[in-house]
Amino acid sequence: MTLQRWKITLEYDGTDYYGFQLQPDGFATIQQRLEAALKAFCQQDIRIHVAGRTDAGVHALGQVCHFDLDYGDRDLTGPNLAKAINAHLGKDKISILSAQPVSDAFHARFNAKNKLYRYQILNRAAPPTLDANQFWHRRKLLDEKTMHQAAQYLLGLHDFSSFRAAECQAKTPEKTLDRCDVTRIGDHVMIEVEGKSFLHHMVRNIAGTLCMVGDGKWTPQDVKTALEAKKREAGGPTAPAHGLIMMRVDYD
Amino acid sequence: MTLQRWKITLEYDGTDYYGFQLQPDGFATIQQRLEAALKAFCQQDIRIHVAGRTDAGVHALGQVCHFDLDYGDRDLTGPNLAKAINAHLGKDKISILSAQPVSDAFHARFNAKNKLYRYQILNRAAPPTLDANQFWHRRKLLDEKTMHQAAQYLLGLHDFSSFRAAECQAKTPEKTLDRCDVTRIGDHVMIEVEGKSFLHHMVRNIAGTLCMVGDGKWTPQDVKTALEAKKREAGGPTAPAHGLIMMRVDYD
Repeated sequence: MTLQRWKITLEYDGTDYYGFQLQPDGFATIQQRLEAALKAFCQQDIRIHVAGRTDAGVHALGQVCHFDLDYGDRDLTGPNLAKAINAHLGKDKISILSAQPVSDAFHARFNAKNKLYRYQILNRAAPPTLDANQFWHRRKLLDEKTMHQAAQYLLGLHDFSSFRAAECQAKTPEKTLDRCDVTRIGDHVMIEVEGKSFLHHMVRNIAGTLCMVGDGKWTPQDVKTALEAKKREAGGPTAPAHGLIMMRVDYD
Repeated sequence: MTLQRWKITLEYDGTDYYGFQLQPDGFATIQQRLEAALKAFCQQDIRIHVAGRTDAGVHALGQVCHFDLDYGDRDLTGPNLAKAINAHLGKDKISILSAQPVSDAFHARFNAKNKLYRYQILNRAAPPTLDANQFWHRRKLLDEKTMHQAAQYLLGLHDFSSFRAAECQAKTPEKTLDRCDVTRIGDHVMIEVEGKSFLHHMVRNIAGTLCMVGDGKWTPQDVKTALEAKKREAGGPTAPAHGLIMMRVDYD
């Protein structure tokens, strides 16, 4: 038996799944569908490891996973493996963009150096139609420049307890945020956030908080005060899952 | 009774509708849903006139319609009318972006000076997930530069019979194409087409034909030959509806 470790990059529409992680009672999750597709492909029970779990409704354009596969002495190329998994995924809204053999030292989660998330807001009076599942709809005009200004208070190493979900399992609330940019293209307001790792709901809580600023209800200084309070009650509301997209994971 | 003519700009996700135009037997169409929403709003049977009909599955980001509404002596602003129609559209994937009062001389179709359509292709091995309903998926790498070169043969006034659906009701197959640009951004190949008016399936037939060039099966010269043959059998295949978006209609 020769196990080969594979790194896969994938995208998915999170709308119809109960998040990434396996759930009891066979609820459809990204991990469950991927492991089922792998089993259909090679008749083995393969455990998938992910760079960063996503919640129900959250999407990905560049999620990364790894797993170990025994394919005997037969040749298997990355493109062929990706094609085979995609074929077994069938109509699932999950798609393997690429697969590549990696050393056993590679770990999708522990080796990740940087993650990029994008939170998408449709900021106009009219309801969304196309892309309704990918944008948080907010009618009132957001002041994205002041949101961006407020976001800069969050950069660097902080105790992010004010932006942490109660059920978060991280060992410490301390994280380093490397980038938090708020930009507008027409009716689209985008919040891009980068860092090595994040607390549960951290990006959605940041997005919800920055929208308090964009609405004029909070000042940028209020965001700083909320951060320094180090308790969830001090932070703003959690933005809905469907506006969040995991864009990219970087490795050395 | 005072009739006021209104111009509305709207977007829709065409996936779940049998095209724009009213159909027998109450099939859900964009026109049917709009007229039902207007009736719910003002208890009148109002006929909607559209700039350019779209087929089942085709989307719009900037479709234009007009209709006449008797609202008595009461005040009605464009934003309020748009909001009211949107409220009555409920969960329909149709959204009024703006409404404005216009003179009785305005006609959404006859006064249209220019229309812009975009045909969207996802050009990669992996199947689409997010936006699967908005892109034609083509695995083989398309040569978009040669497609663009071929497209230039179509510009100007021509008999477009080779790109005309059998059921087309236009009086003449002569149309003037003002722009046909093929561009690529990463995996997305976009075909943008502008002109005053188009034959039935003309944009989709152009897209399908240009993909024959992108695949290397046809030369640009073959497109010119197909155009000059003036018969549908000489043209390429019809690209699927779901990649087509009506982007904009311009008026004086």
